[in-house]
Amino acid sequence: MDKELKVVDLTHTLSEIIPTWDGSCGFELSINSDYKDCTPPNLFRTQKIKCGAGIGTHMDAPAHVVPGGKTIDKLTLEELATDCAVIDVSEEANENYIIMPQVVEKFEKEHGKIKSNSFVIFYTGWERYWKTPEKYINNHIFPSVHENTAKMLLGREIAGLGIDTLSADTGAGGFPVHRAVLGAGKYLVENIANAKNLPPTGAKIFVLPMKIKDGTEAPIRLVALI
Amino acid sequence: MDKELKVVDLTHTLSEIIPTWDGSCGFELSINSDYKDCTPPNLFRTQKIKCGAGIGTHMDAPAHVVPGGKTIDKLTLEELATDCAVIDVSEEANENYIIMPQVVEKFEKEHGKIKSNSFVIFYTGWERYWKTPEKYINNHIFPSVHENTAKMLLGREIAGLGIDTLSADTGAGGFPVHRAVLGAGKYLVENIANAKNLPPTGAKIFVLPMKIKDGTEAPIRLVALI
Repeated sequence: MDKELKVVDLTHTLSEIIPTWDGSCGFELSINSDYKDCTPPNLFRTQKIKCGAGIGTHMDAPAHVVPGGKTIDKLTLEELATDCAVIDVSEEANENYIIMPQVVEKFEKEHGKIKSNSFVIFYTGWERYWKTPEKYINNHIFPSVHENTAKMLLGREIAGLGIDTLSADTGAGGFPVHRAVLGAGKYLVENIANAKNLPPTGAKIFVLPMKIKDGTEAPIRLVALI
Repeated sequence: MDKELKVVDLTHTLSEIIPTWDGSCGFELSINSDYKDCTPPNLFRTQKIKCGAGIGTHMDAPAHVVPGGKTIDKLTLEELATDCAVIDVSEEANENYIIMPQVVEKFEKEHGKIKSNSFVIFYTGWERYWKTPEKYINNHIFPSVHENTAKMLLGREIAGLGIDTLSADTGAGGFPVHRAVLGAGKYLVENIANAKNLPPTGAKIFVLPMKIKDGTEAPIRLVALI
């Protein structure tokens, strides 16, 4: 990679102890066959994965809430490899904070209008609790996004919307952001890591899900180029 | 993404019918809860994944064959997002073809010495059988890489080595390429798609595995920027 380009990993590591929506163990890795079972010099450790598809840093495709909607494997690279806008609300955000349209207006006054086909990340700072799952889940009280903010961004023709919490909706008022964004054929990304290391605009993002046929959700590897 | 940059997906889609090393079903997707189980207007389809970690277009980390070796989560973005060299042997390759060091010598005469930290792809054309698993597996008779070729590339300080077959080793003569490459702390990628769409040199590659703690193998999303 060119020396002037920096690659940033926005993906949490998957393990059995990571936070999940319902607090259960969402990811299991087991050994299938191990070194000791092999005939030297050919040693192998092979493993099996058992997990919810919406685990760790992951994507919701439209079909997650829209019967017959676009599935993970139908998303195009044009929408997955694109421009990135990062809106930092970490100074204001407490557990009850809801991101309102005014936040986007303020961002655009400073950084210009969000480009069409952008992936927009809200950085709330909530990711600091990732390693303490009970606090991260927090009975589903965490910073979230107002439906009108999602609709405003859809007016900008965004490719997708991401956040560093379990979800853009807490569920307390239903899931209007899911319905708006996925209903518009766009995607959501949850549990983003390290977004504080990105500039407000100018980064390129690669939102790369496990390429699952008929998948409604999928773990992703999320990286940015600065 | 800038208009002058083209993104190419080198990843096969995961489903229950794809070829696997032992011919068994390697990937299962099941519905966990479905739209009909929900209270409108909040409909959801959630899914579960059960799979071998070495499924589809995937990576072998050093720990796949080296006890105590580097695992998937320990690979750095420096080695995963890098320059790419594509060596096309599809005109010569039949099912018994073994890629010898002379192939690399010929490539370097035409395209210059392979840069250090490159990801090197051998395109054999075998991927044309991907959708007919029995033929793709072919009793483990398919184009493969000679141990000396792998060692020559390690001398170039490559980041990793990939191929569009089940493996760089057929297993008939053991797994010397696995031992050489993974033993040197580098990675292997198997079941690559669409490498014929890449130039011999000049593309940037993103080799992005599911970020699994202690993983010895992992499904990846493999994309290139031309």
